[in-house]
Amino acid sequence: MSQHRIAVMVGSLRKDSFNRRLANALAMRAPDRFELQQIEIGDLPLYDQDDDAHQSHAVRRLKAQIAEAHGVIFVTPEYNRSIPGVLKNAIDHASRPYGQSAWAGKPAGIIGVSVGAIGTACAQQHLRAILAYLDMPTLGQPEAFLQMKDGLFDENGDIGEQSRKFIQTWMDKYVALVEAHAKEIAPTAGPPI
Amino acid sequence: MSQHRIAVMVGSLRKDSFNRRLANALAMRAPDRFELQQIEIGDLPLYDQDDDAHQSHAVRRLKAQIAEAHGVIFVTPEYNRSIPGVLKNAIDHASRPYGQSAWAGKPAGIIGVSVGAIGTACAQQHLRAILAYLDMPTLGQPEAFLQMKDGLFDENGDIGEQSRKFIQTWMDKYVALVEAHAKEIAPTAGPPI
Amino acid sequence: MSQHRIAVMVGSLRKDSFNRRLANALAMRAPDRFELQQIEIGDLPLYDQDDDAHQSHAVRRLKAQIAEAHGVIFVTPEYNRSIPGVLKNAIDHASRPYGQSAWAGKPAGIIGVSVGAIGTACAQQHLRAILAYLDMPTLGQPEAFLQMKDGLFDENGDIGEQSRKFIQTWMDKYVALVEAHAKEIAPTAGPPI
Amino acid sequence: MSQHRIAVMVGSLRKDSFNRRLANALAMRAPDRFELQQIEIGDLPLYDQDDDAHQSHAVRRLKAQIAEAHGVIFVTPEYNRSIPGVLKNAIDHASRPYGQSAWAGKPAGIIGVSVGAIGTACAQQHLRAILAYLDMPTLGQPEAFLQMKDGLFDENGDIGEQSRKFIQTWMDKYVALVEAHAKEIAPTAGPPI
Repeated sequence: MSQHRIAVMVGSLRKDSFNRRLANALAMRAPDRFELQQIEIGDLPLYDQDDDAHQSHAVRRLKAQIAEAHGVIFVTPEYNRSIPGVLKNAIDHASRPYGQSAWAGKPAGIIGVSVGAIGTACAQQHLRAILAYLDMPTLGQPEAFLQMKDGLFDENGDIGEQSRKFIQTWMDKYVALVEAHAKEIAPTAGPPI
Repeated sequence: MSQHRIAVMVGSLRKDSFNRRLANALAMRAPDRFELQQIEIGDLPLYDQDDDAHQSHAVRRLKAQIAEAHGVIFVTPEYNRSIPGVLKNAIDHASRPYGQSAWAGKPAGIIGVSVGAIGTACAQQHLRAILAYLDMPTLGQPEAFLQMKDGLFDENGDIGEQSRKFIQTWMDKYVALVEAHAKEIAPTAGPPI
Repeated sequence: MSQHRIAVMVGSLRKDSFNRRLANALAMRAPDRFELQQIEIGDLPLYDQDDDAHQSHAVRRLKAQIAEAHGVIFVTPEYNRSIPGVLKNAIDHASRPYGQSAWAGKPAGIIGVSVGAIGTACAQQHLRAILAYLDMPTLGQPEAFLQMKDGLFDENGDIGEQSRKFIQTWMDKYVALVEAHAKEIAPTAGPPI
Repeated sequence: MSQHRIAVMVGSLRKDSFNRRLANALAMRAPDRFELQQIEIGDLPLYDQDDDAHQSHAVRRLKAQIAEAHGVIFVTPEYNRSIPGVLKNAIDHASRPYGQSAWAGKPAGIIGVSVGAIGTACAQQHLRAILAYLDMPTLGQPEAFLQMKDGLFDENGDIGEQSRKFIQTWMDKYVALVEAHAKEIAPTAGPPI
């Protein structure tokens, strides 16, 4: 039975997105006591502060999913040396209204894959600045700047052999971060799922 | 008759947005030979790479407006220590498909107002990184980190007396940047409007 | 008796530096079980990778002081929208040679004061990116962007009344971060001092 | 006869630094009318604001060299996801005292090589933020994130065949930036050397 529910934010809406494939593969690398759930962000409206008092159904659903999660993993491409607008839009929605952010205190992991060599490194730096402001303890090392190559995924959609050990280390460290926080920082959080 | 058309991107959709008021006031500070046009970004879909081959009407309109402009001014709030997702979404749209960006070479100015003391400084740093990648020569000094205070705007919607000299200097420097580029870098660009 | 030794890195070498005064005042805001020790960085050489195999006395002293600490507080001005070179030089030294960084795992706090309104916000963003790479869990909220004003310090060098509650909250959160890590993450670390 | 003197700042003090080799190779890629001069930064003291009124000989020499230059190329490694402290220290020195910066208006190029795949991309983002503040028009595209590999340099120390076309394009764009500025923006600058 899973004890920790992790919200997974995929930064690309493209159907065959490499980052969505990465998110799918990460679910195979998590221990049984962790459940990774990909969160829909493609049905959100563009954020407009005038709607803060009456957030739409999709926004309230997003906020509820984040609020219930014990952690958040961001799996995102880099667009124009920053994170995609579509991901930032979801982040903005769930941070509002002022004082009612759904993100605060959720342990975060950041990972991404790109066709270029820098592997989303610049986007991840911007995302780290945002998550620090949102008060999310974020995994430092190892950083995961993945380049899309033959063999990154195997025929089952899992991480391919060459990268599996690295990704498993990343996942183990993220799992340890979530469990340390669940135990120490937030012992009175809701019941396990 | 105006010779330079400047596209103005306002980062907030809120109707009474301080940044929209700032954009309106900037239009009063520009010389007659400059025409500032605010670009609609609230009707854009969320960017999805699967649509690159058949961009929607709103996206094509956005790209045409940027393409026709001799420069771009970004007037934006800061959301969560970065630029709003809604603005990044517009930037992403007009940068695509790969190799057909509408932004390249357009001289840019960055300005913003916030209720907090840091006046959008962090958002502006992220935006600078993005604009450098988009190959937009961007005004360095003076930086304009404005704080919303009584008197920032006067009763006509213009910049109030206390800040007018500073904003005029900012505008004059931006105008000089645009004119230097129009003359030197892109002498064969389209006819004046 | 103090149980936690905190290394304090002051980013300015100026004798009457506002940030040194802030570092002094912070020591009055820490609980008795915390001892804040300011680390000398003005006697370090400029970092040169050729010296990695035989680090100078000052560098070895710096690394030993960081290694013994249970946490690190960075109190720094902003120079040219980033952290001072003198502080980055110290960070670089103690991170080397590769694989022998003294920083890894030390809980970090970031604070700074400037005469300008943005209060070192941009420098702090760069520093956060650096500390994430160094694998230092870093306090997110509250951020502390202080502006130098009459009354920021009182006649005893303590934080003045107007800012004391805010700074105490900042300190309490930092203390909680250090204690949570000391307990959970690093239970086998050295004996209390 | 060279008409444009370019100051080259190498971010590493290591004798056989890859970035120094890159700086040497760039000199072979510049047109005859450009003279690239590497600036010594290893003899500078650590910046201390108390010295602003009586800068040391090395600092005054640095400032004079920058002041005489028609542009600046930064060739730098990445240390801990930012620029080296040693380079930032040089930048801080030449920016001081307040109002007497040597950097303002000098067209800048950024390039770097690293053994890792991201090729100094994160350091370059921080450097861009700094140069924007220093009011240096900075080359946007192409970005040059080089990875150290066999064949990057040839036996003469020039750029190897595989990368030569790319580096030549980078240099040509930088040269065009300097010449456009020399002509348009600063027609009254000092005589050619």
